Amino acid sequence: MPSEFDVASLGPCTVPSPLARYHDHEGRTIEFVDDRECILVDDRLCRVSDRCDAGGGFPALELAGPRRQLFFEPGRVRIGIVTCGGLCPGLNNVIRSVVMSAEFHYRAEKIFGFRHGYAGLVQSNGWIELDSELVSNIHRLGGSILSSSRGPQDPARMVDRLVDLGVNILFVVGGDGTMRGALAIAGEIRARGLKVAVVGIPKTIDNDLRFLDQSFGFETAFSQAVQAIDAAHAESKGAPNGIGLVKLMGRHSGFIACAAAVASGEANFVLIPEVPFRLEGPNGLLAVLRRRLERRRHAVIVVAEGAGQDLFPEEAAERDASGNVKLHDIGAFLARRITEHFRATGFEVNLKYIDPSYIIRSVPANPADAVFCATLGLNAVHAGMAGKTEMLLGQWHNRLVHVPIAAAIAQRNRVDPTGPLWLSVLGVTGQPLSMM
Amino acid sequence: MPSEFDVASLGPCTVPSPLARYHDHEGRTIEFVDDRECILVDDRLCRVSDRCDAGGGFPALELAGPRRQLFFEPGRVRIGIVTCGGLCPGLNNVIRSVVMSAEFHYRAEKIFGFRHGYAGLVQSNGWIELDSELVSNIHRLGGSILSSSRGPQDPARMVDRLVDLGVNILFVVGGDGTMRGALAIAGEIRARGLKVAVVGIPKTIDNDLRFLDQSFGFETAFSQAVQAIDAAHAESKGAPNGIGLVKLMGRHSGFIACAAAVASGEANFVLIPEVPFRLEGPNGLLAVLRRRLERRRHAVIVVAEGAGQDLFPEEAAERDASGNVKLHDIGAFLARRITEHFRATGFEVNLKYIDPSYIIRSVPANPADAVFCATLGLNAVHAGMAGKTEMLLGQWHNRLVHVPIAAAIAQRNRVDPTGPLWLSVLGVTGQPLSMM
Amino acid sequence: MPSEFDVASLGPCTVPSPLARYHDHEGRTIEFVDDRECILVDDRLCRVSDRCDAGGGFPALELAGPRRQLFFEPGRVRIGIVTCGGLCPGLNNVIRSVVMSAEFHYRAEKIFGFRHGYAGLVQSNGWIELDSELVSNIHRLGGSILSSSRGPQDPARMVDRLVDLGVNILFVVGGDGTMRGALAIAGEIRARGLKVAVVGIPKTIDNDLRFLDQSFGFETAFSQAVQAIDAAHAESKGAPNGIGLVKLMGRHSGFIACAAAVASGEANFVLIPEVPFRLEGPNGLLAVLRRRLERRRHAVIVVAEGAGQDLFPEEAAERDASGNVKLHDIGAFLARRITEHFRATGFEVNLKYIDPSYIIRSVPANPADAVFCATLGLNAVHAGMAGKTEMLLGQWHNRLVHVPIAAAIAQRNRVDPTGPLWLSVLGVTGQPLSMM
Amino acid sequence: MPSEFDVASLGPCTVPSPLARYHDHEGRTIEFVDDRECILVDDRLCRVSDRCDAGGGFPALELAGPRRQLFFEPGRVRIGIVTCGGLCPGLNNVIRSVVMSAEFHYRAEKIFGFRHGYAGLVQSNGWIELDSELVSNIHRLGGSILSSSRGPQDPARMVDRLVDLGVNILFVVGGDGTMRGALAIAGEIRARGLKVAVVGIPKTIDNDLRFLDQSFGFETAFSQAVQAIDAAHAESKGAPNGIGLVKLMGRHSGFIACAAAVASGEANFVLIPEVPFRLEGPNGLLAVLRRRLERRRHAVIVVAEGAGQDLFPEEAAERDASGNVKLHDIGAFLARRITEHFRATGFEVNLKYIDPSYIIRSVPANPADAVFCATLGLNAVHAGMAGKTEMLLGQWHNRLVHVPIAAAIAQRNRVDPTGPLWLSVLGVTGQPLSMM
Repeated sequence: MPSEFDVASLGPCTVPSPLARYHDHEGRTIEFVDDRECILVDDRLCRVSDRCDAGGGFPALELAGPRRQLFFEPGRVRIGIVTCGGLCPGLNNVIRSVVMSAEFHYRAEKIFGFRHGYAGLVQSNGWIELDSELVSNIHRLGGSILSSSRGPQDPARMVDRLVDLGVNILFVVGGDGTMRGALAIAGEIRARGLKVAVVGIPKTIDNDLRFLDQSFGFETAFSQAVQAIDAAHAESKGAPNGIGLVKLMGRHSGFIACAAAVASGEANFVLIPEVPFRLEGPNGLLAVLRRRLERRRHAVIVVAEGAGQDLFPEEAAERDASGNVKLHDIGAFLARRITEHFRATGFEVNLKYIDPSYIIRSVPANPADAVFCATLGLNAVHAGMAGKTEMLLGQWHNRLVHVPIAAAIAQRNRVDPTGPLWLSVLGVTGQPLSMM
Repeated sequence: MPSEFDVASLGPCTVPSPLARYHDHEGRTIEFVDDRECILVDDRLCRVSDRCDAGGGFPALELAGPRRQLFFEPGRVRIGIVTCGGLCPGLNNVIRSVVMSAEFHYRAEKIFGFRHGYAGLVQSNGWIELDSELVSNIHRLGGSILSSSRGPQDPARMVDRLVDLGVNILFVVGGDGTMRGALAIAGEIRARGLKVAVVGIPKTIDNDLRFLDQSFGFETAFSQAVQAIDAAHAESKGAPNGIGLVKLMGRHSGFIACAAAVASGEANFVLIPEVPFRLEGPNGLLAVLRRRLERRRHAVIVVAEGAGQDLFPEEAAERDASGNVKLHDIGAFLARRITEHFRATGFEVNLKYIDPSYIIRSVPANPADAVFCATLGLNAVHAGMAGKTEMLLGQWHNRLVHVPIAAAIAQRNRVDPTGPLWLSVLGVTGQPLSMM
Repeated sequence: MPSEFDVASLGPCTVPSPLARYHDHEGRTIEFVDDRECILVDDRLCRVSDRCDAGGGFPALELAGPRRQLFFEPGRVRIGIVTCGGLCPGLNNVIRSVVMSAEFHYRAEKIFGFRHGYAGLVQSNGWIELDSELVSNIHRLGGSILSSSRGPQDPARMVDRLVDLGVNILFVVGGDGTMRGALAIAGEIRARGLKVAVVGIPKTIDNDLRFLDQSFGFETAFSQAVQAIDAAHAESKGAPNGIGLVKLMGRHSGFIACAAAVASGEANFVLIPEVPFRLEGPNGLLAVLRRRLERRRHAVIVVAEGAGQDLFPEEAAERDASGNVKLHDIGAFLARRITEHFRATGFEVNLKYIDPSYIIRSVPANPADAVFCATLGLNAVHAGMAGKTEMLLGQWHNRLVHVPIAAAIAQRNRVDPTGPLWLSVLGVTGQPLSMM
Repeated sequence: MPSEFDVASLGPCTVPSPLARYHDHEGRTIEFVDDRECILVDDRLCRVSDRCDAGGGFPALELAGPRRQLFFEPGRVRIGIVTCGGLCPGLNNVIRSVVMSAEFHYRAEKIFGFRHGYAGLVQSNGWIELDSELVSNIHRLGGSILSSSRGPQDPARMVDRLVDLGVNILFVVGGDGTMRGALAIAGEIRARGLKVAVVGIPKTIDNDLRFLDQSFGFETAFSQAVQAIDAAHAESKGAPNGIGLVKLMGRHSGFIACAAAVASGEANFVLIPEVPFRLEGPNGLLAVLRRRLERRRHAVIVVAEGAGQDLFPEEAAERDASGNVKLHDIGAFLARRITEHFRATGFEVNLKYIDPSYIIRSVPANPADAVFCATLGLNAVHAGMAGKTEMLLGQWHNRLVHVPIAAAIAQRNRVDPTGPLWLSVLGVTGQPLSMM
């Protein structure tokens, strides 16, 4: 019974893994993972019992990890890697891990790094060769040594390039747009009957991807954002009726805003795309802000960039090269509206607006993300060597899994306004349950 | 059918939760968790199918979270909190979260903080009163504002104190020794027929507790340890045949050493309690170190404090106040043996020994641990209010769960020498598979 | 012969300092400083020789330090402290040091902290009492525990408050506007024949004060700014023809921009108020930026907020509450103009604009600033106890000195476009000598 | 009249500096420095007046900076650089600055980096060629990309190597031992009548060099040490009668201990080589520590490694390869003695010993040190190009100066037990004036 979670592969695996030579001090081999080892998508007892009573059928995700038999031949495999879309902490760590794993564990013949995202797959000279020496220190650097770009390219031309270079596995690091591009490449590959694996490593600084407990770089990003909230807090207390207003990333999902606010413990209002709010009215932000200022004389507001978009007049949306709708600038808007409102009502406030923007995404990965990226890269290589394709590396219930790209991008992960994270935010901020 | 994972409780919950007043912008209440909502201990498809075929029985852990009905009455509940054993990043965050959650969500009548661990439960003046004002900034500080101590105290006297103060819920933050003490307290409470809940919040900087994906403070600790490895790396390259040797925490489990080594990317040898090694012989550390130096002219060795204990002569073990066996100092031992060995063989080496010791555990929690501790504290209060007792907050497959203390301390979490973490370490270090 | 550098005092010092009880292990007393111990303003040999030949007259600044005889009586002295203007790293350290020095060394009877700048001197309840216990941890926090505000207040009312509270010494922490306010207070005090000392502690995050080698907080601020430049660098390399543009503080002086650029080593263009530049023309910024991009494919531009103000149309200047002219937003202007220019010329660029704004000034002081602030506060108290007034603590040629406020604010410290700092910038950036 | 401060040079400067082409926007050339521009060693007014009255003679130090005329020809000059002794933050920054300044400002023909200290001058293959590309990112790394070593080498062989490679200027980065080695090289050069300049860049993490307001790396080192003190503070409060004991670098001078203690604000006792103390007796450390613990229940002790050496039995001193006497381990000694003492007196204490050792010296330079190192390197190149030799770059009264090596190493800079730094320490710690 085919399921939406079945992972495609290029064919039967018949080459023994070189990792079988690894033995521990007691002679045991490493733990290979069998394709049939899956973990349940829904592991709640009640649901499992129900399904059991109903005669079975447990949707499950394939576990990532080294396979005993491979599709590609170690020593002769050629791999490519490309990073697309906006920067995210850990890109270099992922690149480094893919390169080192391919070289050390599977003795890849050649490793190509495509520069400037998918554009590097269609430009002449769009790639460089990578090896462990070259990547040995890149995990100390923010950004991507391969650079990046936005937007799609012609799948046919990209596959031509892969064929020219003899690439067997293409690792694609990027967000949902990038993953759609990966599917287009894989479709072209399938149409031509080629044996090239396309393995996705999901990158979403907003942490909004399905089947991904936490995306790489997310932790580094919100940790960095804490600094901006702390600065806003100091500013808010540094002047009479001080208001510190911080805009953070988060187009569709407020995870960064929520996590940074809880970590900092200094935010008094968190505004996210998932929870609408009004400015005016007795429960609107302006009124509750006034009450807070009267009571405590200072306030810190954290707003995710995608929050409050309904406060702007409806108009034809602009889009960027990735096809993302250009958001209205809610931070500048709030700064202006709050200042004007209190000036009009003769209530002195001192608003300081902080927009750390790219600072939170351009820093090097912190140690926890470094470990996570190392693991992601390693397991992506395991997957590619086993001929897995059109899939990406997810993390579900704390284990790395293989998820078909189509399933992963089918819906977006968002903060649940009735769930535990938002309850933590309410507890930390003391903000009203609803500002509608 | 009672299972080892059934959580004890003080009795039926009949008081409506004040959290029921929380509604989101669409009028939905928050997500209450039902006691019957459990997650499987083993969520692998094959095991689930087998059990289903065999007629069911799925061992499962109770999910943490707010309960719709409570055992204790909000507004009249009195709580106590105590931190025991060695310091760990995040202790103050946990205290802060317990206090704030108890005060804001459940309007606790009084909150007692016992000072100096269990000793504060038997000393006169062993406690202070806590409130949200007092704890508002403590998450910025390392250590514990309640201080700590090692070793058990008389359960009868501790329960006397709880009774005197009218404490309804005691939150115990500590490691396995502390949890045994918590069981002793709970036993005394049961014997007296009292209605006092004992809720554990597990603290293990070594990350070695069962049913705990990751312990609070662990990430901060290994992140801090990266600094020591980086220093060792700089030193190793700063002199001819430089050797940087770093000793890190890890009595029984090498998680800190492994994670820090992978994050840093600079370690060449990682020695942990789970993987024995020899000094002498053709595959021993001294020989492989010599080969590494001849090839690369520098080397970094990371050793967990519990590694290589079998290299010392057998003798009657000393124990500390917590009952832990005093370990032999493997760091100083290796420093001396390596230096002597190479001096004796006329091969110049420059060994620099770094023992960051308490530095890695006394720092404030990093933002990710801050978020985790906030969540732990909040859910511990949810559990206590529902009359859960003799249990601790675990994290299993990325969700917070209630685990009976007895089940949680039944075995220790250790690095698997055939598992994925150790495979990452081997890939990063390039060290031989066995040094026996 | 009175000089512009003569420091005013309230009268003869007749009370022995309690510091005379300090002896070292050989019985020596601490080094008291005599008022006649001055250091030359100009210590260049040629100038000294000339003056010597001309019969003397060496302009000199009074050294700060403990005096053997005091004007005020230890144990009975009451002091006040106020922080004015914008935030700056180290404000809390200065407050802490003044409080601790006054309490420990001179047993001050009472210490008043005025809240919200000069406003706290005219409002009822505008002050709190400070002591060492209360300030013991404040050096870990950014901002000012006393808060701040901009703008002057009525000197007569402020002096009334000082008289009411019995304040003998007022410590004023602020910039040049604040120091003018301090002179107004001191004038009123003189007019009334009171014996109240007014001691300034100069605060200028822009480092632009005369007779101040380096202002407190400056180092912390530019260190923090390095982070923004590094982010801009990562972004500039993260997209084809990437341009990272960073706006930093610096209204009249580009010290922060210069120091941060040299420390980072990643800036390619530094634009400061002291060095005019053009956008258009063969040597203008747009042309040289184009050449840089063609050669290296990425560029980082650091602009001080006061740079390029002549690029905006002349108009009536707005002023803020401190009387500072509101600057045109050169950062947003450059972002727009650069983007438009290259779009118009059909040359793809990807500009990322970063404005860390308040983040660089709201952080806690770094350890070096912490030491400096501790020393400043201590020596301000020494000065006040000796009845010094209408002066501020300067640092000249690496020693703390007393400078009459009038002399200190007579001119502004600026980056010399022919001097060594700018030469360092040119060397690090490789930018053209002139963009006119 | 030759003075001990006269700087030697290789001969008259006749080549125009290429820096003369630098003009600012108003057409002014950069500020060249004339050799006769010196600053007074003693700039106190009273001393200057006395000397003036006595007919002059003002000892003065030559200012560093670019010279209008050079001794060596830009474009043809070859330079060498070597780093010796222990690591220090900023070594790579200095190397980078020397290389970039030599290349960009003076178009050096070749730049040789000798590896492993002076050893690289006598070994075949002891050097690598450096250029700006190669050093562009090294300032992010701790340690020295050239590595280092201790101990002298044969001057004749070292000069042979310089001659072989055609080196015109040798930059020597190191401490007093290294500077003695530089004098030996310069002596050999003089004896052979060669025209090779030897320019020192003083490196002393202990900040103990004469005519050096502050040495590079010192600030980074003490900033890092603050972390250890903060950890000790958290530990001291984490157990009953907790004692946090921290050992810091400082063989002869306690500058790191003092600065870190003042910055942290948490130390209660600072023990440095300059201030002797006793353990026993009514004023000894053990007694005052006991009184502190009885009063406050915790204590933090910071000890410089060179403190208390007289507490050890007199014996024949061992020396390391640099000729430094091997110090007794005062940290471990105190840990043992304090623990034993209180155990013997039946007073429970919990001592935690922290020795950050190499961690504080192996980190990358912080931004302030980065700026300082950039300036040092640039001015060292200016000096070398002008044929200055047997001198080093000092910093006196906040300006960079040329100091004859012989004068600079004639005495050591130490903390004055009656001076302002120690007074700050006493104020911050509250420790007794004498523990004798």
